[in-house]
Amino acid sequence: MEAKLGEFDLIWRFFKAGSESMAQNQTDQVLLGIGDDCALLQPDPAQSLAVTSDMLVEGRHFFANANPEWLGHKALAVNLSDLAAMGARPVGFTLALALPHADSSWLTQFSQGLFRLAQQWQCPLIGGDTTQGPLTICITALGHVPTGAAIKRSGAKVGDDIWVSGRLGDARLALGALRSEWLLDHSSLEAVLPRMHEPEPRITLGMQLRGIASSALDVSDGLLGDLRHILKASQVNAEVLIDQLPISRMLAEQTEHLRRQCAANGGDDYELCFTAPSSKRMELEALSTALLPLTRIGSITSPTNGAEPTLILRDANGNLLTAADSMLLTQSFDHFKSN
Amino acid sequence: MEAKLGEFDLIWRFFKAGSESMAQNQTDQVLLGIGDDCALLQPDPAQSLAVTSDMLVEGRHFFANANPEWLGHKALAVNLSDLAAMGARPVGFTLALALPHADSSWLTQFSQGLFRLAQQWQCPLIGGDTTQGPLTICITALGHVPTGAAIKRSGAKVGDDIWVSGRLGDARLALGALRSEWLLDHSSLEAVLPRMHEPEPRITLGMQLRGIASSALDVSDGLLGDLRHILKASQVNAEVLIDQLPISRMLAEQTEHLRRQCAANGGDDYELCFTAPSSKRMELEALSTALLPLTRIGSITSPTNGAEPTLILRDANGNLLTAADSMLLTQSFDHFKSN
Repeated sequence: MEAKLGEFDLIWRFFKAGSESMAQNQTDQVLLGIGDDCALLQPDPAQSLAVTSDMLVEGRHFFANANPEWLGHKALAVNLSDLAAMGARPVGFTLALALPHADSSWLTQFSQGLFRLAQQWQCPLIGGDTTQGPLTICITALGHVPTGAAIKRSGAKVGDDIWVSGRLGDARLALGALRSEWLLDHSSLEAVLPRMHEPEPRITLGMQLRGIASSALDVSDGLLGDLRHILKASQVNAEVLIDQLPISRMLAEQTEHLRRQCAANGGDDYELCFTAPSSKRMELEALSTALLPLTRIGSITSPTNGAEPTLILRDANGNLLTAADSMLLTQSFDHFKSN
Repeated sequence: MEAKLGEFDLIWRFFKAGSESMAQNQTDQVLLGIGDDCALLQPDPAQSLAVTSDMLVEGRHFFANANPEWLGHKALAVNLSDLAAMGARPVGFTLALALPHADSSWLTQFSQGLFRLAQQWQCPLIGGDTTQGPLTICITALGHVPTGAAIKRSGAKVGDDIWVSGRLGDARLALGALRSEWLLDHSSLEAVLPRMHEPEPRITLGMQLRGIASSALDVSDGLLGDLRHILKASQVNAEVLIDQLPISRMLAEQTEHLRRQCAANGGDDYELCFTAPSSKRMELEALSTALLPLTRIGSITSPTNGAEPTLILRDANGNLLTAADSMLLTQSFDHFKSN
């Protein structure tokens, strides 16, 4: 209850300075940044505004001793990933931060991670709040997407292909190793750790998918659970070829069970999962070569009348998974989810 | 670290339902509300977008056993108050909420307070996040203000009057009584408690002040400290008539010291403090009669060359306060500030 008055004002000035160092690169959409009651953005009549908020809490979304630079990166990245999933371009973000005490070394590192990613996407900090409290980071990100071009979860059509970007499961493979759920050799761990700590929001891909993808979302809680959101919003079923999920060499070296679990259910991937008509395959294969790997992992099928959307899993040979295997994969095994 | 997976999904559905019950009243600015990766807002080329975020933390901004209905109201009110201070009309808000556990009675009451205020201002919940963690509420509010009409802190001019809306100090009077800093009779406490628990954002006033006020902010940390933000942003000095600060009958009954402290430094008032040219007095007096009391409390004076902005305090007779009295009032006495 005891306040350290000047201290948290100082923290805020610290972020203001970081934000101003980006000012010369700020887009002309920001009329007024930090320092007034509100930030002001310039409207663009051709664009819709995409808005997303995520809160990260110590002990739930990150370890208590988490590297502050990674944390600054990740707190913004998970929000930019939501913008990417709509096909939106980042415009700016607000930061609300509760900190147990003002630790200048922590703040310096946190803001380095935060502003490096913000700079990369020309997405300035435009406002927010700092306060004393248990370490909690809440970011609201704003983006622009041409009116009518936003990629929603509700647009998947029967016959569409299901695609996923990049590789799945490495973040979960890293987390499990850190938590001694399984063993991982040192070089493999080093290779997968960045996927857990510094996910790359797929913003360029999201923008390229406008007019191509019929639906999209970002994979934050695990592919199969997240894909279900598309099925529900679009009222369709799906078949997924579980052994075609794209995975890294490190994950490919694990047992079939772990491989499938991490890839299908891992969480924290921040890849895009999207659907597109089969007529778009050539365009997507070209994009896969030019930008980042895109893999076709299944297809959208007809809904069952009156029933909940169903997700059917097939193995490498196209055979249905046994009920037990399927059950395992459709139940989450993750205690570290971001909901 | 242990997650209760379904539970926090359920909470989110709870808020989604509350939001949908407002849907028929939603303005056509909301293209897409809760349920996708982002919300989508319709741009209005004639309006700038005002954005503000505030985080409330248990033990710092509210007591651990705070009435959840009041809390829901207040968490949104402090954000709408920031919109009001810019002259903006609310358009929508996101909510990120960390809760130690899912308590349906708490949630019902919290959302009643939240949605009642949201409904009053036609400001729908458009997105957000729920997670397990120490009780923390982060709201980002979005508003529209005609382009060029936003009331900034930086517009105060030498010779402008300084005005404040409503009555100051009651929230602090209530807080001090609850914390046994002073005694307050039961009926007075009952009368001032709503000012602490359920502040009314001055949105209508803020919109009316477009084209009249030269600068404005909302009084959240105490009048004198907040007024300094205007002086700094506008690079001017000010004189305030400390005994002309508008106060309630309950506060008027207290000692001169307490009266002045609560009114000048109390915090949590959520009134608007603004400046306006003297040519606007008749308009403002008419507004004061029609809407809510507006009181002229001082004037903007010339800046001292090269020096920090200065705030001079005068008593009821127009005499300068003694250095000691002035010092007392220009230092905060409040341990419960929202910074």
